[in-house]
Formats: sequence, C-alpha cells, structure tokens
Amino acid sequence: MTHWKLTLSYNGSAFHGWQVQPDKPTVQGTLRAALAQIVGETVLPQGSGRTDAGVHALAQVASFALEAPIPAEKLRDALNRALPPSIRVMGAEAVPESFHARHSALRKSYEYRIFERYPQGRSRGDVPAQICPPFLAPFVWDCPWPLDLEPMQQAAALLCGTHDFTSFAAADPDLAGRSGADTPGPNPVKTLFASAWLPKNSLLLYRVVGSGFLHHMVRNLVGTLVEVGRGALAADDLPRILAARSRSAAGPTAPPQGLFLVEVGYEADCEVQR
Amino acid sequence: MTHWKLTLSYNGSAFHGWQVQPDKPTVQGTLRAALAQIVGETVLPQGSGRTDAGVHALAQVASFALEAPIPAEKLRDALNRALPPSIRVMGAEAVPESFHARHSALRKSYEYRIFERYPQGRSRGDVPAQICPPFLAPFVWDCPWPLDLEPMQQAAALLCGTHDFTSFAAADPDLAGRSGADTPGPNPVKTLFASAWLPKNSLLLYRVVGSGFLHHMVRNLVGTLVEVGRGALAADDLPRILAARSRSAAGPTAPPQGLFLVEVGYEADCEVQR
Repeated sequence: MTHWKLTLSYNGSAFHGWQVQPDKPTVQGTLRAALAQIVGETVLPQGSGRTDAGVHALAQVASFALEAPIPAEKLRDALNRALPPSIRVMGAEAVPESFHARHSALRKSYEYRIFERYPQGRSRGDVPAQICPPFLAPFVWDCPWPLDLEPMQQAAALLCGTHDFTSFAAADPDLAGRSGADTPGPNPVKTLFASAWLPKNSLLLYRVVGSGFLHHMVRNLVGTLVEVGRGALAADDLPRILAARSRSAAGPTAPPQGLFLVEVGYEADCEVQR
Repeated sequence: MTHWKLTLSYNGSAFHGWQVQPDKPTVQGTLRAALAQIVGETVLPQGSGRTDAGVHALAQVASFALEAPIPAEKLRDALNRALPPSIRVMGAEAVPESFHARHSALRKSYEYRIFERYPQGRSRGDVPAQICPPFLAPFVWDCPWPLDLEPMQQAAALLCGTHDFTSFAAADPDLAGRSGADTPGPNPVKTLFASAWLPKNSLLLYRVVGSGFLHHMVRNLVGTLVEVGRGALAADDLPRILAARSRSAAGPTAPPQGLFLVEVGYEADCEVQR
C-alpha cells in the first residue's frame, strides 16, 4: 500500500466544484475515474478542502492510498494522459501513512482576481470603461463599479490576525441537511497571516493566507471589501462586522470564477498536525 | 438606415464556430439574438469570414444595417450587456453602405499558439516534459513532440508570396453539398505577406498575414509546419507540397483551439475593393 500526495492544478469552469456529485462533472469524481482507469482501484481522493463550482486551483492537494506499486513520475504522467486538459497533475509523491490532505494542512493561500473596468484614480465619467477580454472572463470578476483601493487596503489589513469569522461564513449545505440539529459547525475562529490587495495591470488581486477558511469565506471577504471599495461601507466598519458574528452584517458573496486556491501548506516532514 | 461595422473579440471555446446553425450556440447566432433584443430588428451580421468551432478572435469584423437610430457607443455598450462575457464588442462604427465585412477585406492576420512541452534545443530525454497549465489549454495546441524551430522557420518563409494553396485547403462542407457539381470553389491562389514563427516563453507563435485564406488553411499550414519541426517532413518539401495541389500532399490539420483571428484589414476609407 502506498500513500500518495498529488498536487493538482485545475480550471474550475468545466466542473461543479471539487466534491463528487451524482451525474455532474466534478474534479474529485474525474480524478477517481482516472485512477480507476489506470490502476483498476476505486479510491476517493481526499482534497485539502472543497472548492465551489467555477473556482480554480493552482495547487490543490489530494491524498489517497493505492495497492498497485507504481513509480511517482509514471503515476503523474499516466494521470495527465487520462485526465482532461482542464485538470493537470503537477506533482505526485509518496508520503507517510499519517499524511492527510485536509487534516495535515497548516495553512492555505488564495488569490481573488478582479478586472478593473475603471483604472485607479478615475471615476466613472472620466474615461470609458475598460472591456474585459473574453479570454480573461472565466478567471476574473468583471466588477461593474469604480473601486477605491486605499480603503480596501485598510479594510483588508484589519482582517489580519485571529478573529471569529462567523459573519463571513455561509451555512454549509452538507452540515445543514444532517439529522440531529446540534451537530456543531466548524470552529469559526481562524487566523489570517496575510490579507492585502495588489494592483497588477488591469487587475486587482486579493491575496489572503490563513490557518483555515470557512464555507465561502474568501468570496464573502472579497464581496465585503468591494463594498468598501465602492463606498457602500467604510474600512472602519470591519471591526463591527466581525463583532456582529452574523452573515447579514457583511457584504454579498463575490462570484466564484475570480477565486484561485494557490497553495496548501504542510509541515516539511508531512507529519499530521491536529 | 445605418450601416455598421463591429469589431468583436470572442473566446471560441463555448461556440460551434461563427456561422449560425440550428440548435447550436454560434457567435453569429448569439450576436443576431442580442441585436434583436436591443433594437427589435432581425438582422444576420456578416462576418469577415467563418471561424471554426473552438477558434478564437481578437478582432473579427461584422457588418449589418439597422433601421433604429442609435449612437455607436450606446450600441457597443448595450451589446456588451446583452452578450455573454465570451463575446465582447470592442468597437462599433457607422460605415458607408458599400462596406461589407467580407467583400471589403484586403488582408487577414492570424496567430496560432503552440505550447512547447520540450524547450528549444532539448530532446525528449533531456528534461521532463513541461505540463500545459489548465488555464492555457483552451487557447493552445499542447503539442506532444519536441519541435526544431529552425527548419519550421525556413518552411514558413517558403510559404510567403503568391501560391496556389490547394494542398492546404479542406473541401468546404457548405459548397460540397450543393447541387450542380460544377460550382466553382474559391480561387486557391492567395498571397501571404508574412509567415513566421516567434518563440515566446513556453509558446511557439505562428503569425501569418495574407490576402485571404481557404477553408482550414491556417490549421493545415500549422499541421504541416509541425511535421517539419518534428522531422517527419523537411523544409525543402514545401515547394513540392505546394506544386502537388492535393490535400493529401500536406500534413494533418492542427487542432482549432490554438488559432486566433487577430486582425482584418480594410482600406482606410472603407470602400469596397473587389
């Protein structure tokens, strides 16, 4: 039995998210089918977390065990031949049995990409709106409002550190349906190590690194920061929104296609950290 | 009655090509529906030429006439609200009645993008193959062979000038089905003003400018030049392939998703040139 860690890049446009679903193409289901085709074993790869429909990954991590002995490079290459071009295995490595893509994760990095129709410092009347290229559209939020970067940056910085992020968490549909209403949700207290905006050509990139993220949390953070950028909220509102511990206190959910899972961090020795 | 010239950029991934078809999404059909929604007139925009399923455009040109008086910027913006993000109107301008997107075109520029798994100067055994990012896959040919640029460049240069390009022309399905077998096909003599490869990071770009192009011609040129790059043909074979005036003399058809219509050239005054 070999325990495997795969690093995956995928274009989420074609998938109904990571998690396997009946009759819908998902990344997890497509990977399971490719593994079955190659080694004839039915295993369900465990991801570092689920990504929503339309969300992309530069380096999602998945773990599973196989009976078949197969060299790492051969597994990677055979998977890349079996998988559609929208999913690529960037790396495959054998890991200790204790490694689990989700349980062993110590931190995650995301990037959210906004296309700026109105360059910084220009208001709606000054210049014609920039047109989002159709080749970029599946990978950005083509945001309709002029955004003021400075308060967005201040608000993003206020999110750093350890907070209860209940105001930015969607109810998890997988937990909501369970019998026994007392099932505890995930711990809403998370630590953000970095939270900042970076302007890059026609894009505004939000980079956030944290100990963990609640359901829809990055998209809800971005939706709220954009409310600040367009003047519907102030940066100073962030402490109040966090303290409210209520989803209705924060802004709307940003659309999925701007979001990229960039990296999942583990201890170098891959020991489980619980 | 106003005669219009639209410049369109589109991501061909989602469309069954330019030309309207029953029950299939096409660029022409989607544009017709958006115009009907905006001005309530049913017009079929004429393109500078058809693009195949999966082929992209940076600046396709379409022409049509509308009864409704509407300022150019308003037409552009209203179309961009009505169209899916995969089609963008980059510009709209009123033109003389004599302007026709196809008949008035004097030259066209295309770019074909190949992803190089094996960097130039390396053979298959030297380095591991580069993995084509899933975000690039809809916009390149992920070519499985190491390619030698020098003979490809020589072969590309031999195509410049005026030639009979019958060897690089697919039978046109729209002409093949017509009754009367004597219907003449398009003139196979075309002039290429430029034909060259440009390496750019992990990509090999083929840029070709010509007076006109036959059905599948750019994809057949690329498929043949790649045969030269991988050593299955020599650059010196090109004159023989052209002289054969037979599709079977040339190489296979390169896949559609690497092809971009880059520009359509007209006389500055938009007069019809026949």
